[in-house]
Amino acid sequence: MVTRHIVAPGGGAGVKLARGEQLRLIDIEGGQTGDLMAFSLDGSERLSNGCSFDYNGKILLSTGDVLWSNRSNPMLTIVADDVGRHDFLYASCSVEMYRMQYGVTGYHANCADNLRAALRELGLEPGTLPTAFNFFMNVDVQPDGRLKILPPRCRKGDSMVLRAEMDLAIAVSACPAGTCNDGPPRSLAFEVGTGTRSGA
Amino acid sequence: MVTRHIVAPGGGAGVKLARGEQLRLIDIEGGQTGDLMAFSLDGSERLSNGCSFDYNGKILLSTGDVLWSNRSNPMLTIVADDVGRHDFLYASCSVEMYRMQYGVTGYHANCADNLRAALRELGLEPGTLPTAFNFFMNVDVQPDGRLKILPPRCRKGDSMVLRAEMDLAIAVSACPAGTCNDGPPRSLAFEVGTGTRSGA
Repeated sequence: MVTRHIVAPGGGAGVKLARGEQLRLIDIEGGQTGDLMAFSLDGSERLSNGCSFDYNGKILLSTGDVLWSNRSNPMLTIVADDVGRHDFLYASCSVEMYRMQYGVTGYHANCADNLRAALRELGLEPGTLPTAFNFFMNVDVQPDGRLKILPPRCRKGDSMVLRAEMDLAIAVSACPAGTCNDGPPRSLAFEVGTGTRSGA
Repeated sequence: MVTRHIVAPGGGAGVKLARGEQLRLIDIEGGQTGDLMAFSLDGSERLSNGCSFDYNGKILLSTGDVLWSNRSNPMLTIVADDVGRHDFLYASCSVEMYRMQYGVTGYHANCADNLRAALRELGLEPGTLPTAFNFFMNVDVQPDGRLKILPPRCRKGDSMVLRAEMDLAIAVSACPAGTCNDGPPRSLAFEVGTGTRSGA
């Protein structure tokens, strides 16, 4: 059985995953990036890019790689990936980021607030968010360390699948930032399934 | 006036900095790396590598670059740097890391515990630590995203100076990990001064 959730353009949504369940993140319109956050159900463990970089020995993660928690436990394993290029460096976009980088004076929808709201709906108080896994976001680290945000490689219908390695609270945001998407903010979808089909 | 603090090999220490004060991190023996953590005094803001990468547009930070908080405020500006190569990707070493990567079965001194203890001594409850600024740690990101830890470039007496852009609680750990130092764990020093001398 597969349950599908739609994430509105610039919006967020959350879901709980039992260990062994699989989460499919889907670019249903094309060129849309998203932020993925994972917490253990008691809130004591959360996604850690620093541990993930260390234990995978690399910053570009794809099929077969594991997203680790701050307590050095596996949270999610990437079991399938149509896109193959994601970012785990950038902080989630925030009201402050839109103010500083886009000159937005009022409120602007943002991934940090989306992730926090989705976690709160699942009963977790997120506190300071760690870096999200910015799926489909395409960032190049140049030899001198400079960062270049490139158009995402995802096309309509592309997806990636992650298997939960512990019971998890998951938050997904469809990023509203103009710089990382290929076009205006669009919707995303995610599906939760038991993963009985190979890679599904 | 300058106050000098010694950080024992594999140990940690903390200090409060008033806005405008300068912190000099010193490799007093040569080849020793360290972890630097910064919190606002009320604990609501903490070092964010994700915001620092975004707002500096790069992952390799040196003179003139700013270490930003999770709330998009400047915490520290690097005003002088003899070494020029630091890491802001790796999670602080932890008991779990020594268990997984070194096969250590009992307790092992580690930067995460050192930073937490130093922050607690300053009256802050750190919760989940963000990624520390791993000063003098030399990490190469290869074109395919693989990480390579290289010997640090710091020599005896080398230092870097950071200016506090807000009132801060600072924690420093002299990293006990064999992989990132050039030799066995050694001590570090840091000095706090008013920065009236140019770059000092």
